Amino acid sequence: MELLQQLHRGDSRSIGRAISLVEDQDPAAARILAGLDQTRIEQSLVVGITGPPGVGKSTLTAGLIRHLRDQNQRVGIVAIDPSSPVSGGAILGDRIRMMAHALDREVVVRSMATRGRLGGLCASAGAAVRIMAASGCQTVIIETVGVGQTEMDIIRLADMTVMVLAPGFGDDVQAMKAGILEVADLLVINKADQPGADKLALDLGAVFTDTADRDLRLLRTVASEDRGLDMVLDRIMLMAKQFRQDNTLQKRRQHSFALETMDWAMEMLRPKISGLIAPGGKTDPRLAAQEIVKKLGQESSQ
Amino acid sequence: MELLQQLHRGDSRSIGRAISLVEDQDPAAARILAGLDQTRIEQSLVVGITGPPGVGKSTLTAGLIRHLRDQNQRVGIVAIDPSSPVSGGAILGDRIRMMAHALDREVVVRSMATRGRLGGLCASAGAAVRIMAASGCQTVIIETVGVGQTEMDIIRLADMTVMVLAPGFGDDVQAMKAGILEVADLLVINKADQPGADKLALDLGAVFTDTADRDLRLLRTVASEDRGLDMVLDRIMLMAKQFRQDNTLQKRRQHSFALETMDWAMEMLRPKISGLIAPGGKTDPRLAAQEIVKKLGQESSQ
Repeated sequence: MELLQQLHRGDSRSIGRAISLVEDQDPAAARILAGLDQTRIEQSLVVGITGPPGVGKSTLTAGLIRHLRDQNQRVGIVAIDPSSPVSGGAILGDRIRMMAHALDREVVVRSMATRGRLGGLCASAGAAVRIMAASGCQTVIIETVGVGQTEMDIIRLADMTVMVLAPGFGDDVQAMKAGILEVADLLVINKADQPGADKLALDLGAVFTDTADRDLRLLRTVASEDRGLDMVLDRIMLMAKQFRQDNTLQKRRQHSFALETMDWAMEMLRPKISGLIAPGGKTDPRLAAQEIVKKLGQESSQ
Repeated sequence: MELLQQLHRGDSRSIGRAISLVEDQDPAAARILAGLDQTRIEQSLVVGITGPPGVGKSTLTAGLIRHLRDQNQRVGIVAIDPSSPVSGGAILGDRIRMMAHALDREVVVRSMATRGRLGGLCASAGAAVRIMAASGCQTVIIETVGVGQTEMDIIRLADMTVMVLAPGFGDDVQAMKAGILEVADLLVINKADQPGADKLALDLGAVFTDTADRDLRLLRTVASEDRGLDMVLDRIMLMAKQFRQDNTLQKRRQHSFALETMDWAMEMLRPKISGLIAPGGKTDPRLAAQEIVKKLGQESSQ
């Protein structure tokens, strides 16, 4: 299969086409995904970067890509775009800035919209990550604005997660305490030269019970001036090494394998279920669903 | 079934217990849902209120509840709480203010968290709405912060949707144009006494191609001073009447029936799929899912 060969040679057009085939649920997608270089996938590192709009997440991501390119790494980015009617368009602007890297052939960027999708985003994003890794990207970054549940699910596809905050965005750190520790391996205070950074650091620091842990996992940056980014990258690499040694990486990949498999299975079942929903049914949806699940078994065994 | 009887008498404890049974997927839930008063459900009006945090959404909701109570209506509120680590805790504070209404026995409030859920929120929220309607609530309000895809799905359970914005939250109206018209039946500019309200009204007004349509669907309020809320309620009631006449209501309910049925079916299938995911599988997730969907048919037919 020529596309698969070209993809493995790192041809960015082929990478893009392969991801599109997956997103469009094209029959050819199955063969592409089954034929990906598993060794490259296993050896790659998948970093999730999340945080609310406006904290400079994309500037920081762009900075990290620059540093990774200096180390001669090939980098992939899967950007999850909520494109919600409410959160608005600021995100798109950030994206475009990041796209500037697209001129560099060793940086592969793919943007995925969550809007209007009923599901399957985990499956598509996971497939995009693996396609990029198989194409030779040693590091693949998944960028999301960590707002909805969908975005939170997607960030769990990563081997580790960096949460970016900034002064003025952490007023309610108390309320998010549990959430932060649950999701983030590294906490980055960006725009650390702005007033409020010390207060935010103090609030975020209180999340950690262990001082040594706090010093390792709480970092400050000024991404627009490339300050602190080398440190963030060092910590990411240190953590990656540790995660490989203590099996954290393996466990997380098993978890994301299960998450993606579930998402694919749901996507495959969705049209079958849809076909069995009677229009204008007068029964309760729960009852209707029960009937459908029963029928589903009977039909697929015929 | 005593619980069902008490629920239909409007006992708020029984309503709460019934919703909890549904959320916990208790076997008793099926009988409760199947036994709900369908006439009351059909006659109720389900209003979705959405908008970003900080626009005064909950103040507006509380105001509308007050006006509905003045009309001697019984009101239900299903508040979808994203409780995301990033969007933070401001929402909770708003909730509590709204809870003040809980002292009034004719106002039923239920908060549902999206956090940590894999799915089933549409199903649970839809069930809660119907339980409240069956208990005698003529109007049921679904409140969400319209950020993630999940929240967007949920708002589609409503018969009509009110989107709340405020000066300073509409900078990128151009970018959300399509989204707004797609989701909102009514657009409310709250905090309309603050600077920037005229500019926002102008930007939002440009979304409409029809001037008469704009005048009907774009409203201004100062919810904290109870200004403009009577007008919003009038428009909601006018629209409800129209939607009943031109079959919009019926079509939307059919759509939400399909949405909820799908969600229930998925929830019923999820544990079955989970049980079939082999830990540490070396194949591609898509391939694994294909095998599972095949097995699912065989198992359920045995």
